[in-house]
Amino acid sequence: MKALRFDLKSTCSVTAARRGQLVTGRGTVETPVFMPVGTVGSVKGIAPWTLKNLGAEIILGNTYHLHLRPGESRIEALGGLQRFTAWDKPMLTDSGGFQVFSLASLNQISERGVKFQSHIDGSHRFLSPESSMEIQNRLGADIVMAFDQCPPATATREEVIAATQRTTRWLDRCMEAFNREDQALFGIVQGGLHEDLRRAHAEELSARDLPGYALGGFSVGEAPAVMVDLLQRVTSTLPKAKPRYLMGVGTPRDLVEAVATGVDMFDCVLPTRNGRMGTVFTSEGRLNIKNARFADDQGPLDPNCACRTCSTYSRAYLRHLFVTKELLGLSALTEHNLYFYLDLMRQIRVSISENRFPALLESVRSLWPLKA
Amino acid sequence: MKALRFDLKSTCSVTAARRGQLVTGRGTVETPVFMPVGTVGSVKGIAPWTLKNLGAEIILGNTYHLHLRPGESRIEALGGLQRFTAWDKPMLTDSGGFQVFSLASLNQISERGVKFQSHIDGSHRFLSPESSMEIQNRLGADIVMAFDQCPPATATREEVIAATQRTTRWLDRCMEAFNREDQALFGIVQGGLHEDLRRAHAEELSARDLPGYALGGFSVGEAPAVMVDLLQRVTSTLPKAKPRYLMGVGTPRDLVEAVATGVDMFDCVLPTRNGRMGTVFTSEGRLNIKNARFADDQGPLDPNCACRTCSTYSRAYLRHLFVTKELLGLSALTEHNLYFYLDLMRQIRVSISENRFPALLESVRSLWPLKA
Repeated sequence: MKALRFDLKSTCSVTAARRGQLVTGRGTVETPVFMPVGTVGSVKGIAPWTLKNLGAEIILGNTYHLHLRPGESRIEALGGLQRFTAWDKPMLTDSGGFQVFSLASLNQISERGVKFQSHIDGSHRFLSPESSMEIQNRLGADIVMAFDQCPPATATREEVIAATQRTTRWLDRCMEAFNREDQALFGIVQGGLHEDLRRAHAEELSARDLPGYALGGFSVGEAPAVMVDLLQRVTSTLPKAKPRYLMGVGTPRDLVEAVATGVDMFDCVLPTRNGRMGTVFTSEGRLNIKNARFADDQGPLDPNCACRTCSTYSRAYLRHLFVTKELLGLSALTEHNLYFYLDLMRQIRVSISENRFPALLESVRSLWPLKA
Repeated sequence: MKALRFDLKSTCSVTAARRGQLVTGRGTVETPVFMPVGTVGSVKGIAPWTLKNLGAEIILGNTYHLHLRPGESRIEALGGLQRFTAWDKPMLTDSGGFQVFSLASLNQISERGVKFQSHIDGSHRFLSPESSMEIQNRLGADIVMAFDQCPPATATREEVIAATQRTTRWLDRCMEAFNREDQALFGIVQGGLHEDLRRAHAEELSARDLPGYALGGFSVGEAPAVMVDLLQRVTSTLPKAKPRYLMGVGTPRDLVEAVATGVDMFDCVLPTRNGRMGTVFTSEGRLNIKNARFADDQGPLDPNCACRTCSTYSRAYLRHLFVTKELLGLSALTEHNLYFYLDLMRQIRVSISENRFPALLESVRSLWPLKA
């Protein structure tokens, strides 16, 4: 059996939105799907049983962080990432590439790979297509990502071309090094903000017939409207029969816009990180619980939300928890935000199945303006 | 109806241990009971539904902290402490006295009360028997504590006598000021480490016929053996028909020793604070999860524990969560420690009912030495 099967169930008759299923050895994932981020092997402040109650079906782990602590050898010896983190459903690991470019210091990029210094202890490390595959093979997630070069939003066209070509060469090295049949390797399409480069790269990678494809290098500084506009022109160039994953994106508005272009998978730290900062997503928009106007507010975070936080606590109490820096506030707001995201994905899936996704898209557009 | 009824159910035939029930307007509490501490209105890192699953029947809030943030007026306007914190079972508030002596700076004690500076913003405040009662009346817990003067362990006999006499005068002012029939006011017996002073004070306060009595001024620096020895001589001087509460105590060993002298109620930050520091109580003793020897340990924190943390996570994973400062580690260890404490109290209650408490006492003594 293949590590991953993707079944397309239905397609929107107006937009390119698709409803599907990712079938893995560890269970089936309904798409379009949002994957909560469990950076070092834990979705911050949220227990695995809570994640399941929220309806999460797949979560993400960061190869860079797990490589540094506790290390892939330790995780492998302890039975792999899922057993280690007590999450027995599907997982995806990224390649570590994005973090060595953004988090680590003094990185030196060559054709061989990337030399960098750990952001934790300054130790000298090296990550390459081969070592990223070895680490991800040993971590043992269901889906692993190719090691790519992601240029910054400020890169010139020539720099983007060079990074895209290197990403292709690195993908071939990843495919050569990758050695577990129970894992699925996804390729990553780069090409910056250039439609022609994106199209050409998508075509080039499609020829590799991988089990899935990601769009990398978005949400790296460009205006959201620019990203959405480009997705409308390039998502369709990815193979129709394979799952399409937009990495590191985004706001509720970004998600529905990307779904409308045919994207199936998402991950983003927004709901978890914003929750810890006191910012929540609600059916009435965004709010920050630390605002003094909530000090005597007996209402829930979101009057239209069925999550445990909204069923239990008042805004006044949640604000008090943030003002007094109580741990409970962090997990309560994170839980609400994850519920909001996972519920939005449920609504998206149902609306596609019932062929009324365009109405949902319009209502999200009216509530969540694209940020400038 | 009275705010509180105490029903004695059975008594150990060897020790003075008692099995009882506290009946309040918000539910019944089985005694001997351990009350988790929810300082500012939240047991740190633990949601109210988790507390209930753990079997907590009553929790404590700190008047000093709640007075400073968010303030009793706000809590009263929001429906009282229980509604505010989404904990609908019984609660107890302390008087604030202990904190103004230990936490606040520049406190000045006079017969009228205590002038102090807030540890949060340095603002000048004043707490007295009258204001403590007013605050606690407005917070609305089921059990409120008298405002007492707790001398340090280093106090001279003369200082202890003065503090004890003042505590009596302050209790009379508390009884005069206290004005809610749905709350029960407990008196606090002081007397330092002097058996005669403790006995005399217990007798003096007993005459007030309050619904419950606490032993204050223990665990303030004296050796645990000294405390246990004194409890063996003074707990019995408190009224037999009333609940007896040993404030701010203690280790598992302290709890069973105190139960053996006839104490019914306890509160302590040890299980919650230690959990956040990585220290856990287990059936095999104490351990610190940060220790490197747990890095590859696939076993649970405690092989004999049925809590969710022990059923779900390995020591290796929990250590990783602490090393990487993940929020989940704090709540996972806190939950285990609370389970350990609440389960110990269950075992104590069952053993008293079945008249085999002395065997439990011996087994706890052999596992948990009194600290020097």
